[in-house]
Amino acid sequence: MKLQREKAEEFRESHHRKRILVLPNAWDVPSARVFEDAGFQAVATSSAGLMVSLGHPDGQTIDRKEFVAAIGRIARVLSVPLSADIVAGFGETPGEVAATVKSVIRAGAVGINIEDFAHSTKELHPLEGQVAKLKAIKRAGESVGIPLVINARTDALRYFPGDERAKFAEATRRAIAYRDVGADCVYPMGLTEAASIAAFVKAVNFPVNVMVRKGLPPVEELQRLGVKRVSFGPSASYAAMGLLKRAAREVLERGTYRSLLDGAISFDELNALAAPAS
Amino acid sequence: MKLQREKAEEFRESHHRKRILVLPNAWDVPSARVFEDAGFQAVATSSAGLMVSLGHPDGQTIDRKEFVAAIGRIARVLSVPLSADIVAGFGETPGEVAATVKSVIRAGAVGINIEDFAHSTKELHPLEGQVAKLKAIKRAGESVGIPLVINARTDALRYFPGDERAKFAEATRRAIAYRDVGADCVYPMGLTEAASIAAFVKAVNFPVNVMVRKGLPPVEELQRLGVKRVSFGPSASYAAMGLLKRAAREVLERGTYRSLLDGAISFDELNALAAPAS
Repeated sequence: MKLQREKAEEFRESHHRKRILVLPNAWDVPSARVFEDAGFQAVATSSAGLMVSLGHPDGQTIDRKEFVAAIGRIARVLSVPLSADIVAGFGETPGEVAATVKSVIRAGAVGINIEDFAHSTKELHPLEGQVAKLKAIKRAGESVGIPLVINARTDALRYFPGDERAKFAEATRRAIAYRDVGADCVYPMGLTEAASIAAFVKAVNFPVNVMVRKGLPPVEELQRLGVKRVSFGPSASYAAMGLLKRAAREVLERGTYRSLLDGAISFDELNALAAPAS
Repeated sequence: MKLQREKAEEFRESHHRKRILVLPNAWDVPSARVFEDAGFQAVATSSAGLMVSLGHPDGQTIDRKEFVAAIGRIARVLSVPLSADIVAGFGETPGEVAATVKSVIRAGAVGINIEDFAHSTKELHPLEGQVAKLKAIKRAGESVGIPLVINARTDALRYFPGDERAKFAEATRRAIAYRDVGADCVYPMGLTEAASIAAFVKAVNFPVNVMVRKGLPPVEELQRLGVKRVSFGPSASYAAMGLLKRAAREVLERGTYRSLLDGAISFDELNALAAPAS
């Protein structure tokens, strides 16, 4: 477990550098390996990307074993730290969530994302329950000797009832509570504009994660705003499927293959992505 | 099994139309569903794409159960016929290959691709052995009541010793032998130029499959040349990984997200790809 512990420490440290952490989210083995090869210092999974790739809508509809196996496949081929998005933890109780976390660490991850809402109802979990889960996650990492990096997501900006101001207040309240029980980074879903990002960073005074989406300021500006981590979310999956749609349309309508051939990698390159970099 | 039988018959029939069959190869659930949505009348798997996505180099290094499970995930979300590339059949004997074929049919496929060479040695299997496998495959389909569509691939153009003429002669000899024991289509790997394609089609007088690659004539010209089926091979995987490389470079070097955002699908669209079309 020595190497995995080092990876966890390196990954935690990358949230406290002057330079913002840019974290690509993969959905399977080759997408993760491509990102490592490209030079990213860590790789994360996208829960939507990974689950949909296995035929499950985003949320917790996938079997935990199948989910953990997918994390293990990806971890096996990476040298850089891997952070797994575990959605809401595959369990209702802190104990169940802790069990998920231990499995994911055993599969090779050194970081996790955990959400605070239910996909089915779009309602936020009560703050106390979420705090109890975070404590259990922290202890789960300690119990297996891995200083797990916890990215605590809140969907209060989307699902807390009330106006923008109320949502923002609840999101920062939750972020601060998550910070105070040992999260390493807070991840307010729905933060896109520079002014809101700056206000959020100021309010929590702690590493904040934002997600790539239309309108997000470029990396340099995020860094100036004090953001410590920017992740792709499911955008690489969205982009790949968009490319397939264009390729399909081109082949069906024009009978040509440019979208499939231009800028493509080779057979040998693809095959090499199935295994750890040599 | 009624519907699956109908799909098999429909898929077989699509090799005998005036209009060439354009067959996209997917590697996972959403890539398959995107192709169905785009309007393709059938979908195939790419062995390289599917296996690499699960962390196995192309060939037969993947466990048969894991492979069949992946085919099952894809079949579950498709309404159109699915053809599975089973590499060399996951077995040395005709009986073992037949067992693979039955599993793949039970997983929902109505067609298969089978190769006639060993990935490890790049040597062609003896023709007699390959013919015995094809007979066993045919019987396997009949035994479970599905008129399986067999696409018999030969790598003689690549791996038969000798000059171009000798390779071509061996490839047509094999294609004719495969045709004569009940294959529905023959698939000479490495056929790209119009003249060779036309010569091959003429020599075998039977449905021929060619694969998208640099230099392949456009679909309309393939149809004029008498080709009955053009498949993507692993090109969609190559293209998707190429896109991720460009996106990674853009984010790391310029700090912008255009490659991730332009032409991407939405969260709802991605999520919908996890399940059968409604």
